[in-house]
Amino acid sequence: MMQHRALLHTICYRSGAPFQTNAVLPEITVDIRPAAALPYFTITQTDGKTALRYELARHDRVYGLGEQLGGLNKRGKMYRTYNTDISPHQPHIETLYGSHPFLFITGERGFGFFLDYPSEMMFDISHTHKDILEITIPSQDFDLYLFDVSEPKQIVREYLTLTGSPYIPPKWAFGYQQCRYSYPDAETVQAIATKFRELDIPCDAIGMDIDYMVNYKVFTLDDDKFPKFAEFVAQMKTNGFRLVPILDAGVKVEPGYAIYDEGKANDYFCKDEQGEDFVAAVWPGLCHFPDFLREEVRAWWGKQYRFFTDQGIEGFWNDMNEPAIFYVPEKMKQAREKIYAILSKDDIGRELTEVGDTMELFNRREYFKAFSQRADDGRVVNHDAVHNLYAFDMTRGTAEQLKLAMPGTRYFLLSRGSYAGLHRFSGIWTGDNSSWWEHLEVNIHMLISLNFAGFFYTGADTGGFGAEVSPELMIRWMQLGMFSPLFRNHTWYGSRQQEPWSFDPETTAILRDVLRLRYAMIPYAYSEYMRAVRELRPFIAPLFFEFSGERSQQVEDQFLYGESLMIAPVYTPNARGRFVHLPESRWLRWNASRCEDRAMTVMQPDDYYVSADIHEVPMFLRENRLCVLAEPMSHVHEQPIRKLTVLGFVTNAAEFVYYEDDGASYGYRDGQCAELTIRARKTAAGIEVSCEKCEHGYALQISELACEFYDEHGKQFRSSVTL
Amino acid sequence: MMQHRALLHTICYRSGAPFQTNAVLPEITVDIRPAAALPYFTITQTDGKTALRYELARHDRVYGLGEQLGGLNKRGKMYRTYNTDISPHQPHIETLYGSHPFLFITGERGFGFFLDYPSEMMFDISHTHKDILEITIPSQDFDLYLFDVSEPKQIVREYLTLTGSPYIPPKWAFGYQQCRYSYPDAETVQAIATKFRELDIPCDAIGMDIDYMVNYKVFTLDDDKFPKFAEFVAQMKTNGFRLVPILDAGVKVEPGYAIYDEGKANDYFCKDEQGEDFVAAVWPGLCHFPDFLREEVRAWWGKQYRFFTDQGIEGFWNDMNEPAIFYVPEKMKQAREKIYAILSKDDIGRELTEVGDTMELFNRREYFKAFSQRADDGRVVNHDAVHNLYAFDMTRGTAEQLKLAMPGTRYFLLSRGSYAGLHRFSGIWTGDNSSWWEHLEVNIHMLISLNFAGFFYTGADTGGFGAEVSPELMIRWMQLGMFSPLFRNHTWYGSRQQEPWSFDPETTAILRDVLRLRYAMIPYAYSEYMRAVRELRPFIAPLFFEFSGERSQQVEDQFLYGESLMIAPVYTPNARGRFVHLPESRWLRWNASRCEDRAMTVMQPDDYYVSADIHEVPMFLRENRLCVLAEPMSHVHEQPIRKLTVLGFVTNAAEFVYYEDDGASYGYRDGQCAELTIRARKTAAGIEVSCEKCEHGYALQISELACEFYDEHGKQFRSSVTL
Repeated sequence: MMQHRALLHTICYRSGAPFQTNAVLPEITVDIRPAAALPYFTITQTDGKTALRYELARHDRVYGLGEQLGGLNKRGKMYRTYNTDISPHQPHIETLYGSHPFLFITGERGFGFFLDYPSEMMFDISHTHKDILEITIPSQDFDLYLFDVSEPKQIVREYLTLTGSPYIPPKWAFGYQQCRYSYPDAETVQAIATKFRELDIPCDAIGMDIDYMVNYKVFTLDDDKFPKFAEFVAQMKTNGFRLVPILDAGVKVEPGYAIYDEGKANDYFCKDEQGEDFVAAVWPGLCHFPDFLREEVRAWWGKQYRFFTDQGIEGFWNDMNEPAIFYVPEKMKQAREKIYAILSKDDIGRELTEVGDTMELFNRREYFKAFSQRADDGRVVNHDAVHNLYAFDMTRGTAEQLKLAMPGTRYFLLSRGSYAGLHRFSGIWTGDNSSWWEHLEVNIHMLISLNFAGFFYTGADTGGFGAEVSPELMIRWMQLGMFSPLFRNHTWYGSRQQEPWSFDPETTAILRDVLRLRYAMIPYAYSEYMRAVRELRPFIAPLFFEFSGERSQQVEDQFLYGESLMIAPVYTPNARGRFVHLPESRWLRWNASRCEDRAMTVMQPDDYYVSADIHEVPMFLRENRLCVLAEPMSHVHEQPIRKLTVLGFVTNAAEFVYYEDDGASYGYRDGQCAELTIRARKTAAGIEVSCEKCEHGYALQISELACEFYDEHGKQFRSSVTL
Repeated sequence: MMQHRALLHTICYRSGAPFQTNAVLPEITVDIRPAAALPYFTITQTDGKTALRYELARHDRVYGLGEQLGGLNKRGKMYRTYNTDISPHQPHIETLYGSHPFLFITGERGFGFFLDYPSEMMFDISHTHKDILEITIPSQDFDLYLFDVSEPKQIVREYLTLTGSPYIPPKWAFGYQQCRYSYPDAETVQAIATKFRELDIPCDAIGMDIDYMVNYKVFTLDDDKFPKFAEFVAQMKTNGFRLVPILDAGVKVEPGYAIYDEGKANDYFCKDEQGEDFVAAVWPGLCHFPDFLREEVRAWWGKQYRFFTDQGIEGFWNDMNEPAIFYVPEKMKQAREKIYAILSKDDIGRELTEVGDTMELFNRREYFKAFSQRADDGRVVNHDAVHNLYAFDMTRGTAEQLKLAMPGTRYFLLSRGSYAGLHRFSGIWTGDNSSWWEHLEVNIHMLISLNFAGFFYTGADTGGFGAEVSPELMIRWMQLGMFSPLFRNHTWYGSRQQEPWSFDPETTAILRDVLRLRYAMIPYAYSEYMRAVRELRPFIAPLFFEFSGERSQQVEDQFLYGESLMIAPVYTPNARGRFVHLPESRWLRWNASRCEDRAMTVMQPDDYYVSADIHEVPMFLRENRLCVLAEPMSHVHEQPIRKLTVLGFVTNAAEFVYYEDDGASYGYRDGQCAELTIRARKTAAGIEVSCEKCEHGYALQISELACEFYDEHGKQFRSSVTL
């Protein structure tokens, strides 16, 4: 069997006849061995189930699982992989919208593994037993890919070689997005857009949540709310705003409604136990669910997006695709009867808790066992057995067809549900969090964990979806959102307005500065993002990916943002500073507040309490690294970037590769891009800078560099370069 | 008008004709001025409502509100005072079981105030507006006591002078208590007790949750589950265990049930709008609610505890006394009809959320407006207007009668609901938290905040009530519980066992060490507790009560435990250490793990990352302070303490007053106690120790001191003293 070159350490341990998920790239071939040969784990298979047990050393750390709550080190909690629409995200919740069963262990022995199995698995990571990792799979059919190397960076690289290179969105998607459930009509959207420009607050996109539809029917648009939509879209775009509509997976049962009629006529829907189209309720009421497991259904579905792309839309968010199910009629009937029986008594005490339990109708496991799908090979499979693929296949279908619908233009796509490998097609957002400080902290952990799993383009609802944000939490969350590739402010209809001007004037001013700094950093972020994709290493990485010291292994609340910067977000209320760990090298502290002002301080490796007043973000430039800043713009493509400021902490020699492409097409795949290698070297005379341009079918737009370097004494050296 | 001597800075600003809550001691008289004369605040009164607005300086800090979620500094959140049975304690929750409207501000201007108003008030503390504190009172009848001094310690002293000296429980209540909802019968309780003794794990009490009753009827005991109860209680006590039954506020409507019949016959229950006994459901089903506002009802209720005290019981926990209400029949009928109407449709989409909302029947505000109480002066008041007094008066009645039922023996009493001033009669526990790391952190803040409000005897359900604890969370929480005067492990019937031996053997061993150290520290804790009560200053205090440095003002996750020790609990998963701030003086670091071993290190004031492996608790002994340790015992009164180890960090001179009384009676009030003043002084020759005994009608039981002192170089000096 052919061995893929980059996968020298990956072996697939196969048990039974696993369902082929497509998480792994079809062109990849790896050695396949029987699961019984799996090293490290004790494997027990009885009653059609599998238990994998691994004894952890006292200080081993376990990472991975992508979109999950809890710490970055996953020890101490019970996790599940079963895509679920659930909110609020209380700390004990075991599974969210996506399943990413890729983990790695570091410590006494290091290795990683990807459990390619598309349904529920339990990961008891030191929850029941302090030093035991126990994985339970309700099946004996699965693939376990073992990455038998100890270096986390290399483990991630092998995983991404196996599952594919991360999604690259259009460059405007590195801008800021404003959203709310829902801006009710075009007039409101227009007013929001106008306000951004009036207040000189950068923004590139506005989200359209479910209320734009007619009765929540997917691929419809309410003309009363959004008249002359194509014109409106064009006009918004002229002003630098993309509109991003939401799409739901369920199709309302309603003869005469085109999507329903087509799906019905072509037999595209999932089947219930009687072989009828499966019925369950979501927002529009009773729905059918497209069987995305089939190629023809994916293609049909994906083609529907032309309804929007034909009107100028370039971006979408696929929602409710775990899938979310409110209830199925039969269960509702049972619940109704049980509730009637209890409630018709006149004296109910403790039994009342039963009513509550009975009414917990959302997303019951039994619904997912009550319908089937058909694989492309014709096999009929129970949905439950492939549950975690539903969003994967919906979004795969969307992506494939968007590529065709938008030739030469990168599509923007988010999915709420996901499975390992979806990172090739789309970004994800992390669902319905709450305006809790705790969720700001979780956001940090998730960003890092999702980067491990290849979801470089991701972000949380900045400011929080549920509950009520305070001005200070909004500021601190925007200061983190600033470093999320997906930077979207979104909230629930029941909560206060969260647009940057919805608080007091000082908060507006601080948020404007945050957003201006975000935009100023896009050239750095985009360069580093593209490099991370090329090199298959996390764009946002924990300290232990770069530093080997014992203390660096423990830090969960700081991260590397690209290779030059380390960020220490503030995630507690009323803070005027925070503790940071500065590992191994020296660091140039940069308490960023405005892109125009910088007070830089050289710091030695150690633990510190650093100040961080409400307008300040503790950022640190690594020794002998550079980063670049542009002038902020109102939106990403407002005008070409001609001039960059190069910031550097140069005690010896540093290099940065600035990357540029058109930000819109797939030209970069054919090498239509340009690189500018900027080199700085400390000499007796000062800090010398040299540049090397490399253009391939794309002309670099930068013509000027303003260099601002600091040496180990904090001495500043300024120079400029004309290219 | 007479001015109480200790209250030179307290003035009562009165608006209208406030309901007299009894939060303030009846013997206290203070200057009363019209609310219009209130300084600092802008007061607006319209439509029968009052708004108090205070402009905060950017870095002002706001403390207080007792039992509330959020940070120690309350800025950034919306709070309410309306006693509510609510769980889980999600971060945005605005009110819990107790209302303690005592706050203070420090920063540019410092002062404190107690808003004596027994119903809902809103405290918008920098939530809506970053720099505004806005209090909304739905009334114009209230007393605002202004403590016009800037020193927090003095503000707390004035508040406690006004509202009374904190509750002193029997000394056994400083031991450990094991609880679970529920240990089903005597046999199980016996087995738990036996296990503690077998494993040599100290314990003094076992809680009895609601299932011991007959059909949840208050003041009943199921003889099948607990046969020969008096004998059982006696036998348990012989072995060093107190049993602590729970009592609920609602009285089941059931003719023939003595409590119901008596209450009915004497017209003791709250009245609905038709003048009938108010009916609402709780655990037993439909209930009446004693009108605790009336002296005769309180006395009647309090006398019922004799059912238990006659059988040897010495301690109780009053539950469901906010009061909690599951539903009222009329509302249930309406809800039932609405639900029937929605659920009888066959196609429900978004409407389903209405069903959920309709079924949120628990503790609706309208219930509390639907019944009335009668004040002692005969006035009929709507319950809602005095809602926050219900638990206060129930527990007042309990306390008053327990004093009579247990002459010469201190009663043990906890209440879930509370109002300002209840701290005179009883301790409180902080209700139904969850096994979340977040709630371990909240526990730290609440301990400190409740100490401000005089609730020195308090603690959380250690290990967490809801959700599932992990072994590591159990260990870390027990390491905090160790410093809670009320140290009780309690959990819900749906969660795993939480007794110290319910995990792995290493966890059992660590928890045994934690409990042994707790018991070893009781002589120190009891001495400091009694002194804190005497001096009216928090037993558990934040750093800024003792240290004036800028950094000390910000620390919310460390506390002073008595005057000699500072504790820095670990409250994050997988930690091998934590950051600490060591203020102003030098500190002797003592990573406590077992009471037998100590490795002491001298540390200079600064910020540090200190190690704290899973079995270690970062503790710090303050410069020129002493503390005492005894040999651990299996329960508090196992044997008299004859010997103490004196630990000291002595760079100049230090003094500690060890306090002793019988731990059981009220003799201490008449001075039947003994003090041993231990003095250490550094001289050229070493560290000299001297003692001074002071006995009043009580003979000190200590006869020997083993001194272990350290100087600023970490040099150890050992000596012993025979008394």
